[in-house]
Amino acid sequence: MKKLFYALCALTMVGCCCNTTTEEAPLASTPVVHGEEIQLPAPDLSRGVNISQALQNRQSWREYSAEVLSAEELSGVMWAAAGINRPEKGYLTAPSALALYPIRTYAFFREGIYRYEAKEHKLVRVKEGNFMAKAGVQPFVETAALNLVFVADLAAYADKPFPKEKILYLCGQDAAGYAENVNLYTAGTGLKSITRGSAAADVLETIGLEGDGYFFALAVSVGK
Amino acid sequence: MKKLFYALCALTMVGCCCNTTTEEAPLASTPVVHGEEIQLPAPDLSRGVNISQALQNRQSWREYSAEVLSAEELSGVMWAAAGINRPEKGYLTAPSALALYPIRTYAFFREGIYRYEAKEHKLVRVKEGNFMAKAGVQPFVETAALNLVFVADLAAYADKPFPKEKILYLCGQDAAGYAENVNLYTAGTGLKSITRGSAAADVLETIGLEGDGYFFALAVSVGK
Repeated sequence: MKKLFYALCALTMVGCCCNTTTEEAPLASTPVVHGEEIQLPAPDLSRGVNISQALQNRQSWREYSAEVLSAEELSGVMWAAAGINRPEKGYLTAPSALALYPIRTYAFFREGIYRYEAKEHKLVRVKEGNFMAKAGVQPFVETAALNLVFVADLAAYADKPFPKEKILYLCGQDAAGYAENVNLYTAGTGLKSITRGSAAADVLETIGLEGDGYFFALAVSVGK
Repeated sequence: MKKLFYALCALTMVGCCCNTTTEEAPLASTPVVHGEEIQLPAPDLSRGVNISQALQNRQSWREYSAEVLSAEELSGVMWAAAGINRPEKGYLTAPSALALYPIRTYAFFREGIYRYEAKEHKLVRVKEGNFMAKAGVQPFVETAALNLVFVADLAAYADKPFPKEKILYLCGQDAAGYAENVNLYTAGTGLKSITRGSAAADVLETIGLEGDGYFFALAVSVGK
């Protein structure tokens, strides 16, 4: 009887430990294949520490290892930046002034530059090759696994009679919200990131955006 | 024997349930007393769902009940907006361009306007009375429990040879990061919020900020 009691007590503890273990089990880690498109896995809503601890961990990282992101990590980062969290309406994880959504999100990898398509939660290649140095001016930009470049498409404001400074201001704030979503996501999932205000002067041409209808709004480096 | 087995199986489940119950126990809820100062309790790092679920819940709320925030909720919101998460360096939960920290955070309640002091994690009254209508132009602003107004103190850029538009742009982005921290904190803790770009034309005078050294950068309504 006593033996059974202890056995079941042990079971109780194992049961509870298992619960904990399940929650902290190693997460899926699929390599990213840099083809013409990168179809991202659905964001895993079980990922990450609580929001308070994410805020506690938030900091601006300036040192990165060469390690790349898994498809699951990349999925979470892109979704945090500019993903859809209410598919029925197409609304995003971050807000946009006047709900105009002028921000386009570009992902720079060592393998190429990709445009993020929120609806399909995928990345579409716009250029092959390593253009990391165009995504920022600090040396660590080239070592980070990923650089996000937020570009404002001013056509979204075509109907608004605002002075240009006002439009740039609002686009800049939209991008800052996208960036902070990334910062809290990385802070909450053991990744690193930093919001950066600068890129190479020809970053838009590098992406293939010609004319004065576009505007470099902000960038974020992400890595490990 | 069988009875004991089932009893202990039940115990096993209770044991596990207790774990869960402890994590989800009702949180402390202390009323806020609107004196000259409001000393906030330390942020509770166990609060909130995980960062992925906070991103999933993030949305812009335009309807609020009359219910006010508890001291614990207010503490979390202020800390998310502009709190210190690395006391040894004084760094904040949100980033600031060039680490200049030009943003001052004001909290509008029905009882008065308060300035947030990050170091002491407290609110200091600058004016008694209900000035909620100055914190925004939409009708829901007056019904929300709290309105945060982010003001840029341009003196932080005194040594920077930037054009004024550039300075305003960077201050606006800082404020947008503060605001998005609040949005994710509320989304993760069962509260509501919205980032807003407008306030009454005389909001700075209402706060008591005279001269052209200040700039209304952004606002957030918070409530239930």
